[in-house]
Amino acid sequence: MFRKLTHRVFRDPIHGYINIHEQVIWDCINSKEFQRLRRIKQLGASHQVYQTAEHSRFSHSLGVYEITRRMFEEVKGLADLVTNYDQTVTLLAALLHDLGHGPFSHTFESVSRIDHEKYTELIILGDTEINAILSAIDTRLPHQVASIINHSHPNKILTQLVSSQLDADRMDYLLRDAYFTGTSYGSFDLNRLIRTMRVSGERLVIKESGIHAVEDYIMARYHMYWNVYFHATSRAYEAVLYALFRRLDDLKESDLLDKYPRLKTFLVEEVPRVESLLALDEAVMIYYFSEMQSSEDPILRDLSTRLLNRQLFAYEDIEDDVIEAEVIKMLEANNLDPRYYLAKDTLGQTPYHPYEKETSMLIYIIGRDQEVKELSEVSEIVAAISAGKEKKESKIFYPKIKKVGAYE
Amino acid sequence: MFRKLTHRVFRDPIHGYINIHEQVIWDCINSKEFQRLRRIKQLGASHQVYQTAEHSRFSHSLGVYEITRRMFEEVKGLADLVTNYDQTVTLLAALLHDLGHGPFSHTFESVSRIDHEKYTELIILGDTEINAILSAIDTRLPHQVASIINHSHPNKILTQLVSSQLDADRMDYLLRDAYFTGTSYGSFDLNRLIRTMRVSGERLVIKESGIHAVEDYIMARYHMYWNVYFHATSRAYEAVLYALFRRLDDLKESDLLDKYPRLKTFLVEEVPRVESLLALDEAVMIYYFSEMQSSEDPILRDLSTRLLNRQLFAYEDIEDDVIEAEVIKMLEANNLDPRYYLAKDTLGQTPYHPYEKETSMLIYIIGRDQEVKELSEVSEIVAAISAGKEKKESKIFYPKIKKVGAYE
Amino acid sequence: MFRKLTHRVFRDPIHGYINIHEQVIWDCINSKEFQRLRRIKQLGASHQVYQTAEHSRFSHSLGVYEITRRMFEEVKGLADLVTNYDQTVTLLAALLHDLGHGPFSHTFESVSRIDHEKYTELIILGDTEINAILSAIDTRLPHQVASIINHSHPNKILTQLVSSQLDADRMDYLLRDAYFTGTSYGSFDLNRLIRTMRVSGERLVIKESGIHAVEDYIMARYHMYWNVYFHATSRAYEAVLYALFRRLDDLKESDLLDKYPRLKTFLVEEVPRVESLLALDEAVMIYYFSEMQSSEDPILRDLSTRLLNRQLFAYEDIEDDVIEAEVIKMLEANNLDPRYYLAKDTLGQTPYHPYEKETSMLIYIIGRDQEVKELSEVSEIVAAISAGKEKKESKIFYPKIKKVGAYE
Amino acid sequence: MFRKLTHRVFRDPIHGYINIHEQVIWDCINSKEFQRLRRIKQLGASHQVYQTAEHSRFSHSLGVYEITRRMFEEVKGLADLVTNYDQTVTLLAALLHDLGHGPFSHTFESVSRIDHEKYTELIILGDTEINAILSAIDTRLPHQVASIINHSHPNKILTQLVSSQLDADRMDYLLRDAYFTGTSYGSFDLNRLIRTMRVSGERLVIKESGIHAVEDYIMARYHMYWNVYFHATSRAYEAVLYALFRRLDDLKESDLLDKYPRLKTFLVEEVPRVESLLALDEAVMIYYFSEMQSSEDPILRDLSTRLLNRQLFAYEDIEDDVIEAEVIKMLEANNLDPRYYLAKDTLGQTPYHPYEKETSMLIYIIGRDQEVKELSEVSEIVAAISAGKEKKESKIFYPKIKKVGAYE
Repeated sequence: MFRKLTHRVFRDPIHGYINIHEQVIWDCINSKEFQRLRRIKQLGASHQVYQTAEHSRFSHSLGVYEITRRMFEEVKGLADLVTNYDQTVTLLAALLHDLGHGPFSHTFESVSRIDHEKYTELIILGDTEINAILSAIDTRLPHQVASIINHSHPNKILTQLVSSQLDADRMDYLLRDAYFTGTSYGSFDLNRLIRTMRVSGERLVIKESGIHAVEDYIMARYHMYWNVYFHATSRAYEAVLYALFRRLDDLKESDLLDKYPRLKTFLVEEVPRVESLLALDEAVMIYYFSEMQSSEDPILRDLSTRLLNRQLFAYEDIEDDVIEAEVIKMLEANNLDPRYYLAKDTLGQTPYHPYEKETSMLIYIIGRDQEVKELSEVSEIVAAISAGKEKKESKIFYPKIKKVGAYE
Repeated sequence: MFRKLTHRVFRDPIHGYINIHEQVIWDCINSKEFQRLRRIKQLGASHQVYQTAEHSRFSHSLGVYEITRRMFEEVKGLADLVTNYDQTVTLLAALLHDLGHGPFSHTFESVSRIDHEKYTELIILGDTEINAILSAIDTRLPHQVASIINHSHPNKILTQLVSSQLDADRMDYLLRDAYFTGTSYGSFDLNRLIRTMRVSGERLVIKESGIHAVEDYIMARYHMYWNVYFHATSRAYEAVLYALFRRLDDLKESDLLDKYPRLKTFLVEEVPRVESLLALDEAVMIYYFSEMQSSEDPILRDLSTRLLNRQLFAYEDIEDDVIEAEVIKMLEANNLDPRYYLAKDTLGQTPYHPYEKETSMLIYIIGRDQEVKELSEVSEIVAAISAGKEKKESKIFYPKIKKVGAYE
Repeated sequence: MFRKLTHRVFRDPIHGYINIHEQVIWDCINSKEFQRLRRIKQLGASHQVYQTAEHSRFSHSLGVYEITRRMFEEVKGLADLVTNYDQTVTLLAALLHDLGHGPFSHTFESVSRIDHEKYTELIILGDTEINAILSAIDTRLPHQVASIINHSHPNKILTQLVSSQLDADRMDYLLRDAYFTGTSYGSFDLNRLIRTMRVSGERLVIKESGIHAVEDYIMARYHMYWNVYFHATSRAYEAVLYALFRRLDDLKESDLLDKYPRLKTFLVEEVPRVESLLALDEAVMIYYFSEMQSSEDPILRDLSTRLLNRQLFAYEDIEDDVIEAEVIKMLEANNLDPRYYLAKDTLGQTPYHPYEKETSMLIYIIGRDQEVKELSEVSEIVAAISAGKEKKESKIFYPKIKKVGAYE
Repeated sequence: MFRKLTHRVFRDPIHGYINIHEQVIWDCINSKEFQRLRRIKQLGASHQVYQTAEHSRFSHSLGVYEITRRMFEEVKGLADLVTNYDQTVTLLAALLHDLGHGPFSHTFESVSRIDHEKYTELIILGDTEINAILSAIDTRLPHQVASIINHSHPNKILTQLVSSQLDADRMDYLLRDAYFTGTSYGSFDLNRLIRTMRVSGERLVIKESGIHAVEDYIMARYHMYWNVYFHATSRAYEAVLYALFRRLDDLKESDLLDKYPRLKTFLVEEVPRVESLLALDEAVMIYYFSEMQSSEDPILRDLSTRLLNRQLFAYEDIEDDVIEAEVIKMLEANNLDPRYYLAKDTLGQTPYHPYEKETSMLIYIIGRDQEVKELSEVSEIVAAISAGKEKKESKIFYPKIKKVGAYE
């Protein structure tokens, strides 16, 4: 059904090569919706701290595809249980799962009203090059691909591969983010994980002998969260970005936004259309930020300058209510609106959740006796972590006043 | 003279950490001219082939700074010969040497009339944040920094560190480009090179025991050129970019360019001002390319779409004149102007030039007897390479007609 | 006091270079007692499983020295608190801490009556080349070096560097064993650990910002134990080795052992002398094993052949008493003495012990408020692991009967 | 014909895993002749300089097997041209090609009269466990395996895989020796080499697009020779070893050698039998060296002590005849016999020989036009190196007299 292609490859520092064997994969990669992912960074704000983390969702998406491809090739018994057709459907889902991201992914969702998973689905099903490529093969193909991404596909093994607590997506981004930040925290033994995967009933499971590789992967997640994804300076950058988005949203009906037409279009639509989302990427947004430096609105002017020249907000741990009151007093004394100049966040993350309701999200271990158990029943260390107090961190962000180099 | 700073660091996959010890370095990094380098990719077109090569001149510049810093710290005898003041001047030159790059560096120079080295000098000496930071310390400091970059500084050791055939700039970009492309070609033993460096008279030299590390470095250059920098697909992308710049230059007085004001400003100025250059970066250009997709000019429309969606030109080796004539005939039959739709290039590169007139550009080896010789006199392999026939490659680039997916 | 040496280096894959700056260090490395460590493998039995883990205690000892040296150079405030003399004393302790190991280190202690730490002390204080080198500098030097190794030195910071739950010894062996086995489990961020170390009072502490690096190190320990050090096949090899040592010990007064004079000497001495220990290394033992293949004693003959040709014991998890009884019955039916042909072990390991009595063994974290807390009070994850059920594993080892390739 | 085995693996830092799929491979690995390779170091004397280079011929042999296995799996068209039976024959040849090495491989051949290739053949064809394993499958199998190793097999592609200027043996040892010494010189892109291999007629060839990977491999060889294999300190160690072997050979009929029976047996046999070779390994030799420290012969005593405690000979470049005369005078004045206490060597190495008579040893490149050319016709750099002056180095080795630490 799917036309074979002379084997093509992309070099990749994480996987050595990304191997393409089918025309439809190649065509999707060369569609304009997929090429747009070159212009959306994988780590959003983190490259303000880890300055080499400039990698895009384009290369990450190729990586998720490649891990999924390897699983079909290397996980014993898997290829026998899944038709060739369904394998390609799954590979397409792996490749395309991030299509719906906006610029500065997570922060952007504060003004987007629809989350990126939903947009991904709309892009695959809508009037797009991707849809045309898929529909030309089989009119049901777009829906089949989308159903894996939104977990409605009947074969739970396929959704597990692409989206679960041990999926190709997480595996790729941990390894990739570790490589491009230059930290060692995210490393774990991908080869061993794949080598110890098996199929049991309707589930992907890990052999008992692979349990340490799974524990290592769980710890990699834990460390990447606290060292990279939740880094206070990244959050300070995100706080400015979030404030800017809020200001733009508040001004969305104003003529002041006419200079940023793609953004205005997106903001004023009740439910922004796919075309409006696709018209935005990080190049466009950075161009707009740079234009906003000469806006008539002083808040846009200030916040956009902060973003481009890295004059971030300062931050402190929130230990009681006193600090917030003090910051507000200080902001008001300086005529700064707390709606934009004060942000708080509380972050917590458990690297593994044993109580997910959707059981296909869990990680399972199969013993020598073929009995399958949920990970935290078998791993003392995962049990300890899951039962332990969740680590939480609350910070308040606001501009340092009357100091050159407020971002320090 | 230079105020010390509590030690600050940036993580970096190549060097582990970038270590900052002085306020002036920190302030320059946080200037808007330096932050702009985050928006200019180190490898221009190459990330169309090596899709993970998305790293910027920002992190490269930090790397050049760090290697230079290590040399002052680790090269025996070097710190004794150079005052603390001159060390910091050199570090500033290392950090700032790439400030003058435009978007898509080398291709951009086809329309810029001034080369990037000259712009770097103008930025350091002009009305910029960088200049203000430097002048506040000493009014002569900007000129001193610039004099290292333009090779007019009296102390040749300092220019050798930053710009010669064995300098911190080349060392960083080879290692960095190899890391971010995921190739192993560019790797060489930086630690050993630094460990075997010495000072002899007014020259940096390499101890005889380090000669293999130098040969390895020369070969790394050779391989990176042919495998990465001169990759045919990158050149095909550059051919489209170059054609688009030519079209824009031809249209520069036209109203059609009013929609791209920063670009128009730059193109119409007889000698573009520093401010005009600084207003351009790759985010701005990509935004403009995306706007050009709906230009009234069909050539702008076509070329910008090719760029954004990777519909590159095809290419062939030029072996005789026949092929060019055939391509022109084909283009004319399809109403395509060869001025924009045909490109040729001939590339050749020798990884080491023993006959440079400026002797501070050469590499020197010091024997056990303290005699200093130029590299190709001592290394049979470098002599062989330098005497050998230079490898050259000529290609012609043009659009494939009547085929879906012309970029294949 | 200590004579400087022209800087000498050893290449090392873990640390890049081992840097030697003092004559006494160089002389100790070239002593015959230290060179003997080239003939004792770091991982004993593990290279039967991880076949590339052939590295010796010689290179490990150099690594422990190098990490300690870097700490004095890089840990802020440390060098100021410790005299140059005491720094060198500590470096000597780091270098020499493993001198007292016998062949096949831990298994060998079953017949050695004195543990390797004690032998290390005896070698440093006894009539040895090492002692001569140290005493020639200062007659008190051997005792000072030994006092760091046996924890009696008054400056607890020095003992902490060399021997605690976060010491140069553990740091080197985790990284080294991971490298030479080719597993990624043992990796952690050594540079960050060193960068975040500080001195507070009489203690080495880790800054709060380094806590994730410490957690990563703790997890590296955990994983290396279960994946490498406690690997069942290694233990099967050790079970054979242990049986052979027991047989040799039982036969120690017999003429049968006259063919292995160095071993006999060691076994018959009530408290084996230092000279007797130093006369043994793994080359000698393997030669003896190879000679034992033609011993008149059938048990020696069988066990030594098993060792050299990797015909290890089989193993099973012990879940109840039934299995042991069955194995004994089977052995007796085959005229195999369970004293030698049956082994059991129960292994458990907690990667961090918060309740050590000797407080210099613990890991401490210093907050921004300069308050120092024990690690498990600050790290939720270490607290969870320490409070959790300890993972334990019990196995029984015995020869498979009537099967070619019993070791499978 | 060959029985399949449940997939078994060995971890390996170079290849990730060594994959075993057939019973005969597993059985050969577990034979006593193959296990003996655990006791012979790959790099002989080099671990005196690169102290971590303690890896054995056992793990190297597994590596050569694995590369050959990957070639059959990954080189396009190869598996179609070679029967399954011949593939396994080739894998066996790859695995077993180093069986005939003696302790301290190359130096040992000075007293062995038969080279290691010949001994490998004798072991495969003789009365050994290996021969029994192979013959049990097919009586012709031992000869078939041997014929690949000695180049008499009719299918030249098979000999090219295992033994040519671009073979699995060289590929593995360059990568492995680089890893275990911790140098980066030996690295090249194995994956790309394999990816660009093709079959053309009766030859393995490399696609034109892989030429840079081949050049990189050639340079890796060049650098490893000069930095590792020919390192002066290793040669100083070999000079002592060689002198000791000469002395032993001169004393071979004497009673003095009765204490080293396995060695005596080997030396006195006119053509040493396979059993005599197999009875020797590095553990045995080091035990004997350690015993020789108390020999009645003063030369054995001195040389063996030098070896074990690393009191190597000093060395100097030979620039004229004066130095040799001076050394002889000095030795005679000290009653040292120049036959044992003076050594000279001249080393030269060309990393690629375009004029080999046996054409299956050469490297071939296939162009887009399917024309096959010998490497130096296509690669300017290899042509330059091959045409250039061969680098040569002559040194004289002798003991430093009247100086403590003569080995320095």
